[in-house]
Amino acid sequence: MAEHIVTSYEDELKFIIRRISEMGGQAERMVEQSVSALMHSDWGLAQSVVADDVLLDAVQREIDERAIRTIAKRQPMAVDLREIVGAIRISNDLERIGDLAKNTAKRVIAVHEHSQPMQLVRGIEHLSDLALAQLKEVLDAYATRDEKQALAVRDGDEAIDAVYTSIFRELLTYMMEDPRNITACTHLLFSAKNIERIGDHATNIAETVYYIKTGEQMEAERPKGDSTPSLAHTDLTTPPPGGPGA
Amino acid sequence: MAEHIVTSYEDELKFIIRRISEMGGQAERMVEQSVSALMHSDWGLAQSVVADDVLLDAVQREIDERAIRTIAKRQPMAVDLREIVGAIRISNDLERIGDLAKNTAKRVIAVHEHSQPMQLVRGIEHLSDLALAQLKEVLDAYATRDEKQALAVRDGDEAIDAVYTSIFRELLTYMMEDPRNITACTHLLFSAKNIERIGDHATNIAETVYYIKTGEQMEAERPKGDSTPSLAHTDLTTPPPGGPGA
Repeated sequence: MAEHIVTSYEDELKFIIRRISEMGGQAERMVEQSVSALMHSDWGLAQSVVADDVLLDAVQREIDERAIRTIAKRQPMAVDLREIVGAIRISNDLERIGDLAKNTAKRVIAVHEHSQPMQLVRGIEHLSDLALAQLKEVLDAYATRDEKQALAVRDGDEAIDAVYTSIFRELLTYMMEDPRNITACTHLLFSAKNIERIGDHATNIAETVYYIKTGEQMEAERPKGDSTPSLAHTDLTTPPPGGPGA
Repeated sequence: MAEHIVTSYEDELKFIIRRISEMGGQAERMVEQSVSALMHSDWGLAQSVVADDVLLDAVQREIDERAIRTIAKRQPMAVDLREIVGAIRISNDLERIGDLAKNTAKRVIAVHEHSQPMQLVRGIEHLSDLALAQLKEVLDAYATRDEKQALAVRDGDEAIDAVYTSIFRELLTYMMEDPRNITACTHLLFSAKNIERIGDHATNIAETVYYIKTGEQMEAERPKGDSTPSLAHTDLTTPPPGGPGA
């Protein structure tokens, strides 16, 4: 068997890390393009995001298989094992980010065919800028194995949750004002939620970077963002002026 | 080192498979309870689902670590390697099912504090029955390594998507009828989407069971369910009677 092992562990790891970095770049592009497609009702761009997701899934499978083969062949220990396990986890998060971008892209037609409230799409663009900044930063932290930067990314997720919450409220208000907005706003709501979850995945990646570098789990500092919508919106329980709840 | 290996590969695999089965049972329970909490506005039950998710996450981490250690230690090949890789993938899907149940549970207060349309909650219960049936069946297919049953689960996802689409429409109509329904319906919409995605994870697990048994990827038969909402709802683009889109 030994003749078949033509690369060193270092080479295998480098290959995997390079693929992760490419995957990260592709996931970023998909997020940017899905939101741009939503902004400009660009169905062609939306379709290319959907097509790109197939490639991203394939790269994730490849990284998975490579990583597993490397573990079986090299039996890495300590930081080397964490590198490989970390690669599996990060590629999984990047694949899910791609799925979320794809889901947003698929909503472009539904949002477009309804006259959409442009200022809300802009709110979503702002949300997406924040999530993309987090994604770029965490990929950077991964590239440099910078656990301090990883911690900063984790702490930055709070801002995304706050903007998501404000968009959620705005969308609900908009729907209440005019029922004709409901269908488009519903798709925008799901798109906003997709972006908020992209922020959560950036946080997951930050935690993985921290784990690779230190061998320890990041200490819990705050609950995950997806508690925000229900809890932060309990003050919307008051029915709008005009009467009690049905 | 050899003295430390007190268990056989078979024993390690059995341990992992048993943990997956326990995880599956717990994920099922969480889905059932989250929907029951939604049905009966049971905030206590919802809180216990949220608490259970922490345990599920911990078991997933444990399975991950065990699986990786087993690969490094035993260097399994062919079906043995597929068993371990399959275990990692299935525990990942089960963990995500738990997250979705938790997200639904967190919406209980928001739905409860608005007077919710009971018939819609019942529609969601029906959706959840379908998803739970899929989950039970795929866990069964995993236990017996039955690739035919796995194929049946994959094909059954279509029914879930159809019910989800109908609930989506119903919720939108309900929101359009009376703006006071909008907040609660929005949370029900996210809850329905969570359940539809639980169906997708059951499909993922079915694909993994098929892969473990046959060593091949299941042939693509139909596109994934999450294309349904946007595409199936383009006929909602017509504004309701009363005027053109804003």
